[in-house]
Amino acid sequence: MRTIVVVGGGAAGATAASRAKRLCPSCRVVLIEAGDVITHAPCALPYAVGDMAEESIWLFEKEEFEVERGVEVFLRTKAVDVENGRVKLVGEHGGVVDYDALIIATGARPWTPPVEGLDLRGVVVPTVANLRLAKAVLSAARRVAVIGAGYIGVEMADVLAAMGKQVTLIEGGGWPLPRVLDGDMGRLLASYMAARGVALRFGERVQRLEGSGGRVEHVVTDAGRYEVDAVVFATGVKPNVDLALRAGAKLGPTGAVAVNKYMEAGPPGVYVAGDAAEAVHKVTGEPAWIPLATYANKMGYVAGTNAALDKRAVEFPPIAGASVTKFGDLYVGAVGLTEAEAARRGLSPTSYVIKSTDKARYMKETREIVIKAVIGGGGRLLGMQIMGHSAIVGAYVDLAAQFVGGQAERLFHAEYSYMPFTAPPWHPFAVVGRLWLRNYHRPNGPPAP
Amino acid sequence: MRTIVVVGGGAAGATAASRAKRLCPSCRVVLIEAGDVITHAPCALPYAVGDMAEESIWLFEKEEFEVERGVEVFLRTKAVDVENGRVKLVGEHGGVVDYDALIIATGARPWTPPVEGLDLRGVVVPTVANLRLAKAVLSAARRVAVIGAGYIGVEMADVLAAMGKQVTLIEGGGWPLPRVLDGDMGRLLASYMAARGVALRFGERVQRLEGSGGRVEHVVTDAGRYEVDAVVFATGVKPNVDLALRAGAKLGPTGAVAVNKYMEAGPPGVYVAGDAAEAVHKVTGEPAWIPLATYANKMGYVAGTNAALDKRAVEFPPIAGASVTKFGDLYVGAVGLTEAEAARRGLSPTSYVIKSTDKARYMKETREIVIKAVIGGGGRLLGMQIMGHSAIVGAYVDLAAQFVGGQAERLFHAEYSYMPFTAPPWHPFAVVGRLWLRNYHRPNGPPAP
Repeated sequence: MRTIVVVGGGAAGATAASRAKRLCPSCRVVLIEAGDVITHAPCALPYAVGDMAEESIWLFEKEEFEVERGVEVFLRTKAVDVENGRVKLVGEHGGVVDYDALIIATGARPWTPPVEGLDLRGVVVPTVANLRLAKAVLSAARRVAVIGAGYIGVEMADVLAAMGKQVTLIEGGGWPLPRVLDGDMGRLLASYMAARGVALRFGERVQRLEGSGGRVEHVVTDAGRYEVDAVVFATGVKPNVDLALRAGAKLGPTGAVAVNKYMEAGPPGVYVAGDAAEAVHKVTGEPAWIPLATYANKMGYVAGTNAALDKRAVEFPPIAGASVTKFGDLYVGAVGLTEAEAARRGLSPTSYVIKSTDKARYMKETREIVIKAVIGGGGRLLGMQIMGHSAIVGAYVDLAAQFVGGQAERLFHAEYSYMPFTAPPWHPFAVVGRLWLRNYHRPNGPPAP
Repeated sequence: MRTIVVVGGGAAGATAASRAKRLCPSCRVVLIEAGDVITHAPCALPYAVGDMAEESIWLFEKEEFEVERGVEVFLRTKAVDVENGRVKLVGEHGGVVDYDALIIATGARPWTPPVEGLDLRGVVVPTVANLRLAKAVLSAARRVAVIGAGYIGVEMADVLAAMGKQVTLIEGGGWPLPRVLDGDMGRLLASYMAARGVALRFGERVQRLEGSGGRVEHVVTDAGRYEVDAVVFATGVKPNVDLALRAGAKLGPTGAVAVNKYMEAGPPGVYVAGDAAEAVHKVTGEPAWIPLATYANKMGYVAGTNAALDKRAVEFPPIAGASVTKFGDLYVGAVGLTEAEAARRGLSPTSYVIKSTDKARYMKETREIVIKAVIGGGGRLLGMQIMGHSAIVGAYVDLAAQFVGGQAERLFHAEYSYMPFTAPPWHPFAVVGRLWLRNYHRPNGPPAP
């Protein structure tokens, strides 16, 4: 009987374990999780704090998963070492477990800057494990500082503002979501947030937290000092690579584990999937580390399939960073490279920013959609940034993801549906493509490249 | 100076004329329209009747178009013949006009079954020209029969039900949208419509309209007799091919004008674009006639570009019929072939129907999305049908349109965005792809095809 050991019960690990058992019912599949729950959903944290999501932000109880999926689950058990085809465990299920295939899905953990005062009461680094505490602390607070304006920071600010808190958002970059939005788009989001009462402090870095009686009272940055009742850190995550390194895997240039497209990490039978693993970027062709649940799920599926079948059956494709968030009813998404990033890489980007509507123009209630397309020197679509007032922005990002990396004129030639309530007759992407074609088929201009 | 004559001021013609003038500012571009307005939007008719769209469902006044686009517009002028490089006109601008390039964009006209009583008062065949009359007739009516449950019929039923009318929808097929939905999906839509008060009469054909005093009072079908105050025909359209035939073009197997991918119709300098023209179907590779505004716009753009540059600069790509409509808050869309149509063509379809949600499962308010994917014998995605409770269904159809015609496993490998408010972590399309892969990578099963 083959044994497949999966370490980590999050998106990648739970998917890998389910998939492996389904494809190899005669295999023993063991899922090892250091915490109390599996199939947890950290993306939901802000919404669980704001009571918009269930408090149990995991999808399966251990017993349910064991019965429905046929996987043995060891909770509160940590895999601490790997040697000669065995994993060493400590905790509830201490001892060793032999494996034929090992899938390491140890994920990522929150990273906070090493400042003074992190241990004060009122300081929260939200995780699935401390959700109740985080909720209690934030519910009781009136003034909250959110540190970091990435996706989780923007979402925390949204939820806290909706809860009636006085929110100060502190970010080292010049605008929210600085990794995925250019300044022009980022400033639109910033205006929207400011108009809804969030105090925005861009270009500031936290230096220390001050308190009295063990409770946080001030956030001190290189430019200001803010009175607070609570502080939320949303300063990103780092990959958990320890176990993979002990298993003989190597890190890539991003600091996450280098894997091939089969999720193989090098040592025989060892796969790494999820936030601990690198991927290949669809636009740059280079290693990329973009920790998103969608990739974790799919990497888990690929690793689980290949481990179960003991062959290179499925590949994990290159990624482009398709992602989306919202503040209030403003949804913001992006895929591929920003103009700034493209310029930094010498890709000679041209950008088009267009404003369109979510419905046909003659309809009585329309909302604006803003799209920025970044096109490289050779006519390649390098990235898109999208903003609008409904969840449709997520679907636009998905659509954009199919075009990014290809020629920009595909935006024009692609097929889109239309009816007055769902889109304008010229889809905003077709308009971008038309602008691009207009340039290259311009009167008396040079022939098409 | 070259002269480009465009006949027909709808989506295709207005786009062609604008585009031609933009690319060839030194050309004389003349746009000829038989009616009173150009850039009209017949897709908006139901919503204009229901006061959800503006009553002026056209985008440009003649003068605006002339000034902004530099195109001469002849209204109330009909092109009746084409001979030796000249178009013969009657009406406000009678006479002849010489052309170097002629773009025929004469569109389509409503078709009604040849039944008795069509001339009774209260009988409406909505067009842009008779919109006010249609509104007046329908506003005054209490009981309205809608004949035909295609897109316009479903939309008219939606609008009339929202206006508080007692609506009877009569359709020869077995369910609404029978050309684009299979019975399983069509019956879901039918249940939704019935639950909202529309009396549905499927499998019935209108035999005659009866009235007294010149006013319609009954619709008589082969199975019933319905008391009505008004009747709306939504029984489809037929291409206006007369002028194209006079210009020497040929009809294709669909009854619309045969053109190549440059929108050339055969005779030198003659292009046909929009609802009068055929296209190539992306899935079947055969001629198809699917009169949609999106295609008309793009065909106009292609014809206008090629006519202006006097070369084969741009191609109109194959089409897959991506389309969407709504009844109440149920949005329904489709692209490609239905399962029934695929079976009829011997393509050995397998179908997957999945239910997913518009948000992550742990969110407190989620709505159902139902997706049917039709996959052919060789693993090719032949079509998708999609139903859900927001305009995002249109964007899902657009996404599906990028996959239709290719291998179904792309649905799995494609990249999708995710956040709790916009989608589940496994996009519904990825779930379809996963189901498909599950079959072909099944344990001990045959190798992938």
